[in-house]
Amino acid sequence: VAKVTTTDVLIVGAGPVGLFAAFELGLFDMRCHLVDALDRPGGQCTELYADKPIYDVPGWPRILAQDLVDRLMEQIAPFAPGFTFNRMASAIAPRAGGGFRISTDGDDVFDARIVVIAAGGGAFQTFATTGEAPKARSVFHPVRRMEAFRDLTLDDDRIPVDTEKFQTSVAGMFAIGDISFYPGKLRLILCGFHEAALIAQAARRIVAPSERRVFQYTTSSTGLQKKLGVAD
Amino acid sequence: VAKVTTTDVLIVGAGPVGLFAAFELGLFDMRCHLVDALDRPGGQCTELYADKPIYDVPGWPRILAQDLVDRLMEQIAPFAPGFTFNRMASAIAPRAGGGFRISTDGDDVFDARIVVIAAGGGAFQTFATTGEAPKARSVFHPVRRMEAFRDLTLDDDRIPVDTEKFQTSVAGMFAIGDISFYPGKLRLILCGFHEAALIAQAARRIVAPSERRVFQYTTSSTGLQKKLGVAD
Repeated sequence: VAKVTTTDVLIVGAGPVGLFAAFELGLFDMRCHLVDALDRPGGQCTELYADKPIYDVPGWPRILAQDLVDRLMEQIAPFAPGFTFNRMASAIAPRAGGGFRISTDGDDVFDARIVVIAAGGGAFQTFATTGEAPKARSVFHPVRRMEAFRDLTLDDDRIPVDTEKFQTSVAGMFAIGDISFYPGKLRLILCGFHEAALIAQAARRIVAPSERRVFQYTTSSTGLQKKLGVAD
Repeated sequence: VAKVTTTDVLIVGAGPVGLFAAFELGLFDMRCHLVDALDRPGGQCTELYADKPIYDVPGWPRILAQDLVDRLMEQIAPFAPGFTFNRMASAIAPRAGGGFRISTDGDDVFDARIVVIAAGGGAFQTFATTGEAPKARSVFHPVRRMEAFRDLTLDDDRIPVDTEKFQTSVAGMFAIGDISFYPGKLRLILCGFHEAALIAQAARRIVAPSERRVFQYTTSSTGLQKKLGVAD
């Protein structure tokens, strides 16, 4: 029996970039649910190098990968996104009336207005070449399964996106992080953060097209601070 | 008497985005010098809201603006970039044989292969509308002065760039942070960090065009870790 979860945004992949997407989308009042093949958040950071330091996260001269994940989980907590672990997205289909139904390799099914693919993708190969044996659980590669979605253009396992919205060839489906591709693309966590910020703008236009939007800053906007639970 | 400083990269603006550019450029062995009209690093973070928290720096659920600047200064320290404060870039001219000469409103002159404009630009207006009186020293708007550089295309005080290299209409001159413009542009610090990472790739191709480059990660590359002074 399928267990259907309805959400504004289904994020495929709960690595650092997927997590931060939940923050940016949350700032714009979109409810997010994340699905990941692993049993906990963090993606490659947690699975492949949790105890190793990263030196190029801006503002962090040195941070252990797991600590970055923990900090991101703390940062998105005000928006209370949902999580489904141990499930791999297996198919994505458009729904009549808009949005998507995302199936998994289990009973869980998700209906969402927006899909954000934030899976690590080809970056896994980088680690496989270092001599470490790939762990079956960490091979999280939903793209192969999604070729069933005939309108999605693929380019050598990566998903081409524009650089304005980071949207795929399918309207309402976005791709960020290592699995996305565009001219100049670097597979850096910090680039995925930028991509996450830009999809939030575009996704909001789909979810609430008639809404008048004013761009605000967390430092100065009481409205945003209320959402974050930090307003005076 | 002009005091000429020669460097690989002259970064105009020592705000958070300009500072992080020195990190990314440093990883690729480019010497950087930063010039800023203020008397210390940090740009708007330091001048306008040093003691206010920012909530959307990825991995920092909450960080005071001045603390972010301090962390970035710590992060770029291994590359020992040069700084010239209290000087506003007043003119940029191409040099015979390539590169640029950047003049200031003082005796300081810079010869550089690459120019990165990382000035806050129009973002200042955002603060001016909150009722705070603008401080004369914080109106750092080098673009107006650079119209003398006839090849530089401007768009309403902002500098259009591509999204592959964040290069302006002038080869070798890049623009990042609030002063740059491209479809989807958001004036967020985290977006400037991404822009800084991508210019480093493009700048390196100009400085060392014949060099064979392999993309590496700070977590796994001993070479990068040696540059950062953290290798075992």
